[in-house]
Amino acid sequence: MLNVFKLIGFSMKFNELRKDYLLDRWVVIATERSRRPTDFAKKKREKAKAGVCPLCPGNEHMTPPAVLVYLKSGRKIRKAKDENGFRHKNWVIRCVPNLYPAFTPPKQKTRKKGTAKHGDLAEAVGHHEVLVESPRHNEHPADAKIQQLTYVINAYRDRLKELASKPYVKYVSIFRNHGLEAGASLSHAHSQIIATPFVPSIVQKELKASRKFWKQNKKCVFCNIIENEKKGPRLILENSNFVAFAPWASVNPMEFWIFPKKHETSLLDMPQNKVETLAQTLKTCLRALK
Amino acid sequence: MLNVFKLIGFSMKFNELRKDYLLDRWVVIATERSRRPTDFAKKKREKAKAGVCPLCPGNEHMTPPAVLVYLKSGRKIRKAKDENGFRHKNWVIRCVPNLYPAFTPPKQKTRKKGTAKHGDLAEAVGHHEVLVESPRHNEHPADAKIQQLTYVINAYRDRLKELASKPYVKYVSIFRNHGLEAGASLSHAHSQIIATPFVPSIVQKELKASRKFWKQNKKCVFCNIIENEKKGPRLILENSNFVAFAPWASVNPMEFWIFPKKHETSLLDMPQNKVETLAQTLKTCLRALK
Repeated sequence: MLNVFKLIGFSMKFNELRKDYLLDRWVVIATERSRRPTDFAKKKREKAKAGVCPLCPGNEHMTPPAVLVYLKSGRKIRKAKDENGFRHKNWVIRCVPNLYPAFTPPKQKTRKKGTAKHGDLAEAVGHHEVLVESPRHNEHPADAKIQQLTYVINAYRDRLKELASKPYVKYVSIFRNHGLEAGASLSHAHSQIIATPFVPSIVQKELKASRKFWKQNKKCVFCNIIENEKKGPRLILENSNFVAFAPWASVNPMEFWIFPKKHETSLLDMPQNKVETLAQTLKTCLRALK
Repeated sequence: MLNVFKLIGFSMKFNELRKDYLLDRWVVIATERSRRPTDFAKKKREKAKAGVCPLCPGNEHMTPPAVLVYLKSGRKIRKAKDENGFRHKNWVIRCVPNLYPAFTPPKQKTRKKGTAKHGDLAEAVGHHEVLVESPRHNEHPADAKIQQLTYVINAYRDRLKELASKPYVKYVSIFRNHGLEAGASLSHAHSQIIATPFVPSIVQKELKASRKFWKQNKKCVFCNIIENEKKGPRLILENSNFVAFAPWASVNPMEFWIFPKKHETSLLDMPQNKVETLAQTLKTCLRALK
C-alpha cells in the first residue's frame, strides 16, 4: 500500500505546484527536498518517563470528572458519567475535560455576555476534552482491536452530539496528535475534542467553495473528488462504504483522507454497521504507515 | 525585557480570543496551557554531528557556485560571484542556490511555458537560496557583531533587488529556521531566500485589508499599529528608527515584530545608516530571548 505514496512522485520532472481541490491554495510538491542531509544529531527515540500517567486506569482522580465513560456490561456497553466526586473504574473508554483547556464553558454569572465579542477581543468560550481511547497506555490505533476503535468512534459521536447542541458552540473539531513532535504532551492513547464559538476559517472557505461548485456544476464537489480519485494513482483502498486516498495537494507527507462513498454530511448520520467499517478502514490505513 | 512578554498575560481572567490587526483571523491566547505536564522524556540538547559542514569555509565546492559573496577589501566590502568552476574563499557572507530547492528557475527550453498554470498544476518556478550569515559555524545572530549583521541585511537587500527584477518572480520571502525543531537541517548560521511566482495568500490578504483600512480611515494601518503599540504594554524597545513589540494576536510564543517608524514599503528604500540601526535592533531583541 505504501507504494501508492511513492507513485505520487514517480513521474515528476520538476517541482510541482498543486492547487487544492477546493481552496485557492497551492502546495509545493518537492520530493527531492526530503533527501537533504542534516548535521543535527538524530534524536533519541522518545521514551515515556517512568512516572504516573493521569490517563491510566487507577489514576481517575488525577483528571476532572469524566463527562462520558463506556463500561462493559456483559456483551453490551453501558454509558455513564462521573458524578458527586465518584470516579468510574474499569472503563473501556473515558472522556474528561482537559485540565489545561484552550476553550472553557461560559460561567454561570457571565452567561449572557459569555460569547460576546468586543472588537478584537472575545472570551474563548467552548469545550476542550480528552478522549482516552483505551485503558492500555500504549495502544496505537493501528494495533487496537476493531471493537475498541468502534468504541472510540461511537464516543466521538456521543460527544459531538452533546457538544453541538450547546447554543454557544458553532463547530466541533476532533483531532489526535501522536508523539511529542506532533504536539502531544502525554503518550497515553488519546484524542482531543474542541468545541468552538466560531466555524474555523478554513472550514468556512471550504463550505463556500463547495457551495460555489454545486451552483456551477449541479453536483457535490466531494462526490466528484471520490469519482476521480477512485480511478487514479492516489487510491489507497476502497471497500463497501469508504474510499481512502492520498489527496492531490497534500500538505503533509503520508497524508490520507477517508471519504464515505454515500453522500453524508455528518458522522451522526452514519448507521452503526458503517461505524465498524470505518474503524476497519482507519486501522488498515494506519497500519500501512507503521 | 522579557518581562514584557510575561506582562502580556498578566491580567487574563479567561482564555482570550484575539483578532489579528489586519486579518479576519482569531488566535486563542491560553497561557495556562503551557504549564501542562508531559510524560515524554526531555530531548537531549541537539548536538551537531561531527562531520563536514557544506557551509563552512574550505567546503565551498560542496555547494553550487555562489550567486553572491562579500569579500573584505581593506575596510570595504567587494561583491563577487563564483564563476567558471572557481569558488571564492575568505568570504564574510556567501549566498548559494539551495541544493534541494523548492523553487527552480525556468529552463531555457521551456521558458515560454515556464510559469504557465494548467488548471490545478503549475511548475514551481522561482529561486531558492541559502544565505550563509557568517564563516563561523555557530554564530548566533544574538552574538554576532553589528558589522556582520549589517552585512547580512545588505546581502538580503542585494538578493531581493536582483530576484525581484525577474519577470516570473512575484514575491521574495526571506526567512530563518533556527534548530531542528524549527525546520533547519543544517546547524551553520544561515537564512533562506525564496522567490515565488505568486504572492503568498496571507500577504495578499494583508494587502487587501490594509488597502481597505486606508480607504476607511485615510491612514496607513501599520502607522496606526505603531502609534498604539508604542504607548502599550507590548512595547519591547524603541530607538531613532524602529519600534519592536510583541503583536496583540501572536501566533507563536515570544513572537516579536520590528517596524520602521518612518512609513517605508520595502527593505530597498532603507538608507545605509538605518540598516545598521536595524542590525542593532534585531540583535537586542534576539539577545533578550536567549
